[in-house]
Amino acid sequence: MTYLFNQPSAFAAELIEGFVAANADKVRQVRGGVVRSTRSKAGTVAIVVGGGSGHYPAFAGLVGQGLAHGAAMGNLFASPSAQQIYNVAVAANNGGGVLLGFGNYAGDVLHFGQACERLRADGIPCELLPVTDDISSASVSEIEKRRGVAGDLAVFKVASAAAEAGHNLAEVFRLAQHANQRTRSFGVAFSGCTLPGATHPLFEVEKGHMALGMGIHGEPGIKDTLVPRADVLAEIFVDNLLSELPAGVAAAKGQRVAAILNGLGSVKYEELFVVYRRVAQLLASAGVTVVEPEVGEFVTSFNMAGASLTLMWLDDTLETLWHAPANAPAYRKGSVIVAEALSPAEREEPVQETLPEASAVSQQSAQRVLLLLEAMAQQIQSSAEELGRIDAVAGDGDHGIGMERGVLGAVAKAREVAARGAGAGTLLCRAADAWADQAGGTSGALWGVALTAIGTALGDQQEPDASRVATGVRHAREGIMHFGKAQPGDKTMVDVLVPFSDHLSQAVAQGASLSDAWQQAATVAHDAAQATAQLLPKMGRARPLAEKSLGTPDAGAISLALIVNTVGSLLHDKTPV
Amino acid sequence: MTYLFNQPSAFAAELIEGFVAANADKVRQVRGGVVRSTRSKAGTVAIVVGGGSGHYPAFAGLVGQGLAHGAAMGNLFASPSAQQIYNVAVAANNGGGVLLGFGNYAGDVLHFGQACERLRADGIPCELLPVTDDISSASVSEIEKRRGVAGDLAVFKVASAAAEAGHNLAEVFRLAQHANQRTRSFGVAFSGCTLPGATHPLFEVEKGHMALGMGIHGEPGIKDTLVPRADVLAEIFVDNLLSELPAGVAAAKGQRVAAILNGLGSVKYEELFVVYRRVAQLLASAGVTVVEPEVGEFVTSFNMAGASLTLMWLDDTLETLWHAPANAPAYRKGSVIVAEALSPAEREEPVQETLPEASAVSQQSAQRVLLLLEAMAQQIQSSAEELGRIDAVAGDGDHGIGMERGVLGAVAKAREVAARGAGAGTLLCRAADAWADQAGGTSGALWGVALTAIGTALGDQQEPDASRVATGVRHAREGIMHFGKAQPGDKTMVDVLVPFSDHLSQAVAQGASLSDAWQQAATVAHDAAQATAQLLPKMGRARPLAEKSLGTPDAGAISLALIVNTVGSLLHDKTPV
Repeated sequence: MTYLFNQPSAFAAELIEGFVAANADKVRQVRGGVVRSTRSKAGTVAIVVGGGSGHYPAFAGLVGQGLAHGAAMGNLFASPSAQQIYNVAVAANNGGGVLLGFGNYAGDVLHFGQACERLRADGIPCELLPVTDDISSASVSEIEKRRGVAGDLAVFKVASAAAEAGHNLAEVFRLAQHANQRTRSFGVAFSGCTLPGATHPLFEVEKGHMALGMGIHGEPGIKDTLVPRADVLAEIFVDNLLSELPAGVAAAKGQRVAAILNGLGSVKYEELFVVYRRVAQLLASAGVTVVEPEVGEFVTSFNMAGASLTLMWLDDTLETLWHAPANAPAYRKGSVIVAEALSPAEREEPVQETLPEASAVSQQSAQRVLLLLEAMAQQIQSSAEELGRIDAVAGDGDHGIGMERGVLGAVAKAREVAARGAGAGTLLCRAADAWADQAGGTSGALWGVALTAIGTALGDQQEPDASRVATGVRHAREGIMHFGKAQPGDKTMVDVLVPFSDHLSQAVAQGASLSDAWQQAATVAHDAAQATAQLLPKMGRARPLAEKSLGTPDAGAISLALIVNTVGSLLHDKTPV
Repeated sequence: MTYLFNQPSAFAAELIEGFVAANADKVRQVRGGVVRSTRSKAGTVAIVVGGGSGHYPAFAGLVGQGLAHGAAMGNLFASPSAQQIYNVAVAANNGGGVLLGFGNYAGDVLHFGQACERLRADGIPCELLPVTDDISSASVSEIEKRRGVAGDLAVFKVASAAAEAGHNLAEVFRLAQHANQRTRSFGVAFSGCTLPGATHPLFEVEKGHMALGMGIHGEPGIKDTLVPRADVLAEIFVDNLLSELPAGVAAAKGQRVAAILNGLGSVKYEELFVVYRRVAQLLASAGVTVVEPEVGEFVTSFNMAGASLTLMWLDDTLETLWHAPANAPAYRKGSVIVAEALSPAEREEPVQETLPEASAVSQQSAQRVLLLLEAMAQQIQSSAEELGRIDAVAGDGDHGIGMERGVLGAVAKAREVAARGAGAGTLLCRAADAWADQAGGTSGALWGVALTAIGTALGDQQEPDASRVATGVRHAREGIMHFGKAQPGDKTMVDVLVPFSDHLSQAVAQGASLSDAWQQAATVAHDAAQATAQLLPKMGRARPLAEKSLGTPDAGAISLALIVNTVGSLLHDKTPV
């Protein structure tokens, strides 16, 4: 149960404000998240972490001396957008490049990946570090598919201490990967969590039961049992972690580990201490020495009840970095001399983007593209609830809300840049950024990719013709499949986009007008969206309820079909784009 | 819901072990709780805090450099015994005397008071600091009756920083009182909590409702409303606290405050930040400057859902002390150079108490007293469940369990010292300590007082005769009324003890044998216990259900009557004591 919120849609934004107000000695707000409010050493690598909100102290609570330099903060359980991550990274950069650290989830991989490309394009060296500590989430043979949970703290701590020690980006990246390779977690859940304003839990665990290996967003676990005694849970934790030693650790006996016993939100400190008592005994019996253990809340899932044990298998280098002092809002250790606060002037964010020059004809087109975006917004707003219902069957039910936030953000941005004389291409690209930024989540990022591809194809000089549009749609399709990693048949928007793009290109090549070609392709898109009901549910970040999705169309596919049909109905009026 | 425990009765002991295992760099375990494992400055005042367990990080999480020197840890929601507090204080003492800090609850007042007397008797200067920050718990005119909640942190922080600065006990005590006088909290609750192994919540709040002013053990609040928006709750907090400025603060405008927004267990960080956002705005509008705010969990109540806002109105001295660095397991601030760890030898506790010499006749009496204690234990064990049921009507239902723990602890100790040749007086006194120590809670302390009074009257030299026993019982009655502050008619054990003691003394004075006198008095005690059903419920730490208690006898009165009747039935056999 969540008790305290205002508008649920404002929750994530308001919590950042409150967090910064409470911790102004350590962090300051920038667009997209927070960065340190204290001086970092010039030239050192910046560690920028992030993910969805609702996991405090992950990720903002880990920003401060000796730990991260910045955190990109997404909506509740939704990845921050590439734009947010990019903003935070630029603000956090000390001139030594940026390491982006995040849990290995589809949406985060997508957005952090895009942000990394953008940073590199701007000449800021960048590396990506997806944390993969959750041993229940995939087998050893697919270790790169594992999710990140409380091991985030161990890996970020090592990376940050390495950066603080003055290592360059390549070395910080190597040490962080080494830490990730030696970090393993095993978690259990007793109950789900209910997000602000929701009437039902996002996911549930049967009363009196324990879901072994359940993820922190309710990703299905590997087994259900009755809730055991605390000592038995400690044995489950230790047995599972000792049975999968990382490469380079031949035997547990004689090893040294950093240990994190993490509560997910509603399991309280007292209970964690009772469990840790036995964990400590068991590790000692196994000949394993625990170095500076942490027992508390480090990666939560709102008020979800559950716990996990993380072990990072140390060598001398990792132990030195684990031991190094830190002073973040939610994580402090060792001897710390508080760093100098930045002056007010230094805290200002650089602002005001310039717009590229556009031809008069492209500026006129931009006005028409704006009309199309407004029509899309109207359509999405009236369909948002229905999209949410469809999404709730197999997903987390936020597709309608996400699309609505995205398209409204896109329209607002498009209006602003249209008024400032943007061309059609720039207008679409800026609207794309705003969409991804406001929507968050995987679908937001993919819509950002798609509109950017089309905008780039249109450019700011010539009138957008049928051929340019068809090319843009083809590039959108390639971008979505590249970043989203989905194939036709996976029951996603790709199942709509591929036939739509094929038919559009084909009709245009055969000489059809844009409106005729689009209309034909839109009909195909509509049918393809309905057909996703016949496909198996997509895999990945599936919810426990995913089994029920067969027979319901995919919400992302439906919303794409809706949008291309809305656009088609306007193009039908023979208005040139 | 509490998920993780082994034997519920072992929970408090096991959590200490786990806590110490996780924080060995800062704390070490001693009998009764924890003290710092690092070196403190010799000659400085030791700040020893404590209370029931279940409020982590209060109280053990606040032990460390710049904060407390030790914490006495009671059972769940039960005061530590005077013996526990005494042990912790002796281990924490740096040669500068001890300040005992605790929330102002009946059981804590009683036990910390006894511990203070014992420390003084041993030549260790000691002062008592009951924290009284909860403005909902009594009116300004009865400010000394207020309970202590999250203001504990502010007051302990000031006291500890003053001790660290080298002030003597009188000055530390003065500053701590000054901090307490300037610290005010207002809290709300959304749900109760369920203790380990319990099938029902200890107390509840109606679903969708908020209890304004409810205490952290479910003490009744002042009003019930629907759960408001987060911003409205912030207004309720700030309005209530600004409407009762402490003496010495003429107007809010222009003042500086330390602010603590505290979560009680299930309200999560994200929610607290959303509330704090508005609290910060409101205080700024009122012209109040917040200095180093804290938003998080500081005094919890297991997994109870609720929150409170605390303001400490600063002057220059208080601000300096609030600002001073600290490094405890759950509270760290400022620049800290980690203190030197104590050597293993320095961590050892001094041990093995010696027994005073006893005459052969008193040693024989001691064996008979042991038999009486064993009979009492048998009686209590078979009645524990029924006593719990009676207590659950007006209290927290733990009277049976507490009595059982107490009497079993007393028997174990009595056996040990009887085997080592203790006299009757010493045997009873040591058994009394063990009873209070094991039982915890108010009734445990009072039984400790009673048996100590009787043991002292018996002594270790002469045969206990009727007159000595009657004197002991009279002293027990005086001690209980002195420490427990109850009068006849308050529906407590005093309603049984007073007539029992009167009749016993009277019959003995008239020449009756001990067994006859005791028998007569026991009959009176039985009737007096039944009669408590006709009295109004006692006040104080009443539960929300207290109104229903009229018509049910008091559990403490019943258990006393049971015990005197059990003893009487054995004395009837003409066995001399």
